[in-house]
Amino acid sequence: MGGRSPSERTRVRREPQRGAYERAEIDAILDAGLVCHLGFVHEGHPFVIPTLYGRSGDEVYVHGSSASRMLRTLKGGVDACLTVTLVDGLVLARSIFNHSINYRSVVVLGRAVEVENAGEKLRALEAFSDRILPRRWTDVRPPTTTELKATSILRLPLDEASAKLRVGPPKDDEEDYAWPVWAGVIPLALRAGEPQADPRLSFDLPPPEVPPRYGGVDAFPATS
Amino acid sequence: MGGRSPSERTRVRREPQRGAYERAEIDAILDAGLVCHLGFVHEGHPFVIPTLYGRSGDEVYVHGSSASRMLRTLKGGVDACLTVTLVDGLVLARSIFNHSINYRSVVVLGRAVEVENAGEKLRALEAFSDRILPRRWTDVRPPTTTELKATSILRLPLDEASAKLRVGPPKDDEEDYAWPVWAGVIPLALRAGEPQADPRLSFDLPPPEVPPRYGGVDAFPATS
Repeated sequence: MGGRSPSERTRVRREPQRGAYERAEIDAILDAGLVCHLGFVHEGHPFVIPTLYGRSGDEVYVHGSSASRMLRTLKGGVDACLTVTLVDGLVLARSIFNHSINYRSVVVLGRAVEVENAGEKLRALEAFSDRILPRRWTDVRPPTTTELKATSILRLPLDEASAKLRVGPPKDDEEDYAWPVWAGVIPLALRAGEPQADPRLSFDLPPPEVPPRYGGVDAFPATS
Repeated sequence: MGGRSPSERTRVRREPQRGAYERAEIDAILDAGLVCHLGFVHEGHPFVIPTLYGRSGDEVYVHGSSASRMLRTLKGGVDACLTVTLVDGLVLARSIFNHSINYRSVVVLGRAVEVENAGEKLRALEAFSDRILPRRWTDVRPPTTTELKATSILRLPLDEASAKLRVGPPKDDEEDYAWPVWAGVIPLALRAGEPQADPRLSFDLPPPEVPPRYGGVDAFPATS
């Protein structure tokens, strides 16, 4: 897919035709996802923790309580890996061996840096909010100074990032196409169900419009 | 939530009320998921890679090409972290600060061991197949000896595992309940769309029945 060249660490080795290094493609995947999986080493052991994230320009942000083990470890400047995966479909082949998943994923390597600037902290929080629901940011009570202080936000640059994806129908061994079984793709997407109002909601308000799905082509356009 | 006690490494520290150590709960989350995120250290840097997994009894399995960097690193007996996350909903509060995600996740720590026994390899592949689609295993061409040899399968015991989850409506600061905005939960689940037949499908066969969603209460019962 050409373009930007990968670092030695982010180059996709297995099935290199599945690798993509273009920032536009990386950004599109990051903007379509909802949670990331963040990897780091703590006391010699790798940990992988799911968490919300946001992207703003050339940075991805994660956040958490200033007291969390993950945040305290990461802001010590250790190496991290932030991975976002969109599961797009089940690939049903004629043989067990050729079954697969259609997916798009991004891996970002780097060291997280704590965001100290109040304006940048606000922008990062807005990016998280947009990830949950576009425009929610303007509808609810904004963060107080105390809340901002209780929140640690870390920034990871997109300098060393790569995408990997699988699209399309199954690829079977030539002789297996005669196997009399249905084959194809079952599309999957993270879709919203019926909104459940908070039992303590005391106003007669309609629920907000939500994206029909996360991670798909008909996803709500990101506003950040 | 009592029961089995966590190891020092798997004990949930932040918001310990969200932690669960019961095997039944851990198994239910593992059986409802589709992909895991696998963390390991390679040349000093943590990597987090999405991959299919399967559970069979007290083990989780991952697999891949015998040539993959991830598999080669892991089967050297290094520490690993396997994390499965089900995203269950967007939690829309009255304040930005109290927005959240409903989710269920499992973290498994341990060292992966390569599966050498052909019978166990087959059982593990059946567990992967069941994860993609229950009963698919019996409908398609089974693996050949050559295919089995080209597939590395690793086993990770569930000895050191914990679950963490958030359920229910938003929890707002008492004074924020008067904020005139819709609040509640937008349920999310990985749902199947219309099956897309392989353009090379040459039989008039209906698509298989698929679970209405992955990771929800109305999910297809697992067969493994």
